[in-house]
Amino acid sequence: MMDLAQELVKGNHKAIARAISLAENNRTAAQEMMKKIFPKTGKSLVVGVTGSPGSGKSTLVDQMVVHLRKNGKKIGIVAVDPSSPFTGGAILGDRIRMMRHSTDPEVFIRSMAARGHLGGLAKATGEAIAILEAAGKDFILVETIGVGQDEVEVVKLADIVLVILIPGAGDEIQAFKAGIMEIADIFVLNKADSPGAEKTEKQLQAMLDLGFGGESVPPVVKTVAIEGKGVKNLVKEIHKLVESKSQEFIDSRKKRLISWMLRDIINDKIYQAVSQNIPESEFEILVERIFMREIDPYTVADEIVGRLKKAKA
Amino acid sequence: MMDLAQELVKGNHKAIARAISLAENNRTAAQEMMKKIFPKTGKSLVVGVTGSPGSGKSTLVDQMVVHLRKNGKKIGIVAVDPSSPFTGGAILGDRIRMMRHSTDPEVFIRSMAARGHLGGLAKATGEAIAILEAAGKDFILVETIGVGQDEVEVVKLADIVLVILIPGAGDEIQAFKAGIMEIADIFVLNKADSPGAEKTEKQLQAMLDLGFGGESVPPVVKTVAIEGKGVKNLVKEIHKLVESKSQEFIDSRKKRLISWMLRDIINDKIYQAVSQNIPESEFEILVERIFMREIDPYTVADEIVGRLKKAKA
Repeated sequence: MMDLAQELVKGNHKAIARAISLAENNRTAAQEMMKKIFPKTGKSLVVGVTGSPGSGKSTLVDQMVVHLRKNGKKIGIVAVDPSSPFTGGAILGDRIRMMRHSTDPEVFIRSMAARGHLGGLAKATGEAIAILEAAGKDFILVETIGVGQDEVEVVKLADIVLVILIPGAGDEIQAFKAGIMEIADIFVLNKADSPGAEKTEKQLQAMLDLGFGGESVPPVVKTVAIEGKGVKNLVKEIHKLVESKSQEFIDSRKKRLISWMLRDIINDKIYQAVSQNIPESEFEILVERIFMREIDPYTVADEIVGRLKKAKA
Repeated sequence: MMDLAQELVKGNHKAIARAISLAENNRTAAQEMMKKIFPKTGKSLVVGVTGSPGSGKSTLVDQMVVHLRKNGKKIGIVAVDPSSPFTGGAILGDRIRMMRHSTDPEVFIRSMAARGHLGGLAKATGEAIAILEAAGKDFILVETIGVGQDEVEVVKLADIVLVILIPGAGDEIQAFKAGIMEIADIFVLNKADSPGAEKTEKQLQAMLDLGFGGESVPPVVKTVAIEGKGVKNLVKEIHKLVESKSQEFIDSRKKRLISWMLRDIINDKIYQAVSQNIPESEFEILVERIFMREIDPYTVADEIVGRLKKAKA
């Protein structure tokens, strides 16, 4: 076996792909590699891109790649994709355009699927970002499907967060989920040549003025991603934001990612320790006894945690 | 202080409200109460109601309450509400209709807000369900906003899951998030008098036939919730499903809730133990050292977990 860590820091795409798969499937097995590459991480600009389905996220990311490649930037794309058997096809269709970059040796594209358990998506994404950083990518674009709580968690891992809106999305803005407005560093009004663009922009501005109380309202950038319009300006705004925000701002974001990863790794290790101490068969018997109301779950939990603490490390 | 457990099992609404607040804000403090009421839980039918914003969930729940009250059923409603400062008002508006039931001594309504951390919503909801069960509610309706992963987790706690669609939602069906189609026991096509209802029904049926491979496809029930049309039939379908599915089906759902609660309580206790062993100030220093790349998060996590295991129970 090739030395994965050594190969991926050279920017080898096959090694990157293999490393992300390893981190996704078996964190314990990936740990030695992650430890090795960790000193090389933390030097990329991580841009989170979120917005409702149909807002043109993939197209926008595609056009940002076109623009950034012209400037010689190395790019990693993590497409966070909670697809189900019912939706897989549709989402794949949206991504076809972006795949034209997959033959570019400086553009690495990876779809990450939800693993069915809460937070599982964000977990693997954190490690994928670290791997792409170690591989020397200048920009890492993290694109999400939808605007659920899970996606909010994922884009929080980014240094800069773009929230994409489209004209006529007034109702949608209303229906936006917890925290999505608050996490935006830049709003992108895409499809800005459509009817109602001006109205939506005004609604958004009014909302932002209200929500942010007039203080450091995030900029609104208009784009027509399908034609590449406004994308250059968007990238300029990102750079402007990074510069104006001072190093402290970016550092604080990077520390947030670290803090999040650390908690997550700890939780993961503890979860493993618990699983090792309670075989699935015993867990099922406990559930059955609770179901029969012979015992309550709080007492059972106390007993299990007590046992874990007594177990050898 | 009144004995909360004693009062809430009598069905006292003030006690129910206080108990849910206690469980939301401080699980440790709530534990003694939860232990006391636990033997009284598990006898209600828990119905999860989910669907996109604008699909008429609140109206449908409102009309189900009207119908169930005519039959003398006691009802608990948990409205899972991940509102943000930007959306709070809009969501509140949707709920005004439902509030007319709040003066009914046999209808308890509670909005639960997301607490900003992943899974926090589902956590408190599990306990709210248990409290309402102990309070003797026959039906517990768990209504969610949106169709994010968080909501999917929440409705999974229900015995029976309704997924609400509206005509013209073809694209929306495509954009549905992971697992939402799979978790439906009954599909409700609301606003069934709108143009395009028939087309959407056909699309949905085609999709279901494909997705379920023809085996035990969930029924599709048409309603016009705003006029109360089809609601009686929906309740009938729910009962029919419960009866046809046999006790085993309902038991397995109830065991799923228990299994989920047990894991969650264990995780919570462990998290507390970790927090007690690592003061926030030390955690921040560790994050800073990782940020400076003096050390990696995996090594830090190993050290912390090792320390936890050595700590006294």
